[in-house]
Amino acid sequence: MIIGEVVGSVWATRKDERLNGLKLLVVKPTYAKDMSSSFVAADLASAGVGDTVLVTKGSSARSAFGKERIPIDSVIVGVVDSIDLAES
Amino acid sequence: MIIGEVVGSVWATRKDERLNGLKLLVVKPTYAKDMSSSFVAADLASAGVGDTVLVTKGSSARSAFGKERIPIDSVIVGVVDSIDLAES
Amino acid sequence: MIIGEVVGSVWATRKDERLNGLKLLVVKPTYAKDMSSSFVAADLASAGVGDTVLVTKGSSARSAFGKERIPIDSVIVGVVDSIDLAES
Amino acid sequence: MIIGEVVGSVWATRKDERLNGLKLLVVKPTYAKDMSSSFVAADLASAGVGDTVLVTKGSSARSAFGKERIPIDSVIVGVVDSIDLAES
Amino acid sequence: MIIGEVVGSVWATRKDERLNGLKLLVVKPTYAKDMSSSFVAADLASAGVGDTVLVTKGSSARSAFGKERIPIDSVIVGVVDSIDLAES
Repeated sequence: MIIGEVVGSVWATRKDERLNGLKLLVVKPTYAKDMSSSFVAADLASAGVGDTVLVTKGSSARSAFGKERIPIDSVIVGVVDSIDLAES
Repeated sequence: MIIGEVVGSVWATRKDERLNGLKLLVVKPTYAKDMSSSFVAADLASAGVGDTVLVTKGSSARSAFGKERIPIDSVIVGVVDSIDLAES
Repeated sequence: MIIGEVVGSVWATRKDERLNGLKLLVVKPTYAKDMSSSFVAADLASAGVGDTVLVTKGSSARSAFGKERIPIDSVIVGVVDSIDLAES
Repeated sequence: MIIGEVVGSVWATRKDERLNGLKLLVVKPTYAKDMSSSFVAADLASAGVGDTVLVTKGSSARSAFGKERIPIDSVIVGVVDSIDLAES
Repeated sequence: MIIGEVVGSVWATRKDERLNGLKLLVVKPTYAKDMSSSFVAADLASAGVGDTVLVTKGSSARSAFGKERIPIDSVIVGVVDSIDLAES
């Protein structure tokens, strides 16, 4: 999974109907230097802008939904309370 | 999912027959610095050159189709109306 | 699989309930120059901070669990005793 | 999918028997700056050195085959006739 | 698939039991500039240090095994005899 910051949201009227009702958020990986690795994730953890989140990608992202055939490849599965990093 | 700009289209006469009838568009990720991460996606959202689009990748891309066995790994699933980014 | 060092842990109260009870560790790939490719993996090998671990990613990570529908894309499958690298 | 140039071929006598009879070509992504992102793809489009090709990756690559259990993760699914890029 | 050089091996006593008996080798992609993209692959082609090998990644790597539920994401599927690259 990836740790990222929610930095924005995306609006799309014309889209695959299975995406209807999903909140689509822009996530910037926490340890990334710039926006180049940012991506969009469907929110399943009631996250919002400014939150640090845990994101699951790939086919495992679909596992978060009750139905298998949904064209989603990134899902916010948790809101991070804290990250404890060892001294290095 | 990735946010990208449609920057062109690809023509291929000799191809897997399951790709027949699909519009294949060249997508440049919006936050990429150059073309090096550009790729081709099958369009399922009536997108065109100049549009900002939402792209699903990997096995989830196949989920956008009614049939499972199609050799497609990137699909345009939406046309983006707007992106709201927080001040940083 | 990736060889990485466990450099920390992540706490998230609000998360997909299928992640309950799993230890979520921050892993830095051993040969990476900085934290930018670090990620979070669920621990199935009783690993801890400072350990060198073997991580499986993608849908294969789900195979480590008894149930298929779990939104996990990275799993620690082993604790590395030693790496023998040839002279180059 | 990725657009790439076929820059060579690979020979391997000792290999998984399910790869027998497949043409294995070295593909350099068209927009890559150097060989570092080059990879090997199984050819299903009668491609040859010098051709610009369309490559499908991941589990979707397996979908190009009639059988599901084949250890192939990259397949050439088309030979590109032309790429129309918009002025930028 | 990726072409890589086998540069070492990994030993792990404490690991998922489905990895028991598998030879785990460190592979450095042939065209990589440094070790940062190196990874570990299970050997199914009797490869050894110094060999140039063909590696399949992702869910396709699992296809190399007789059983589907094995937490492996990279497999050596062949030993390369020669690579013919076109003049460029």
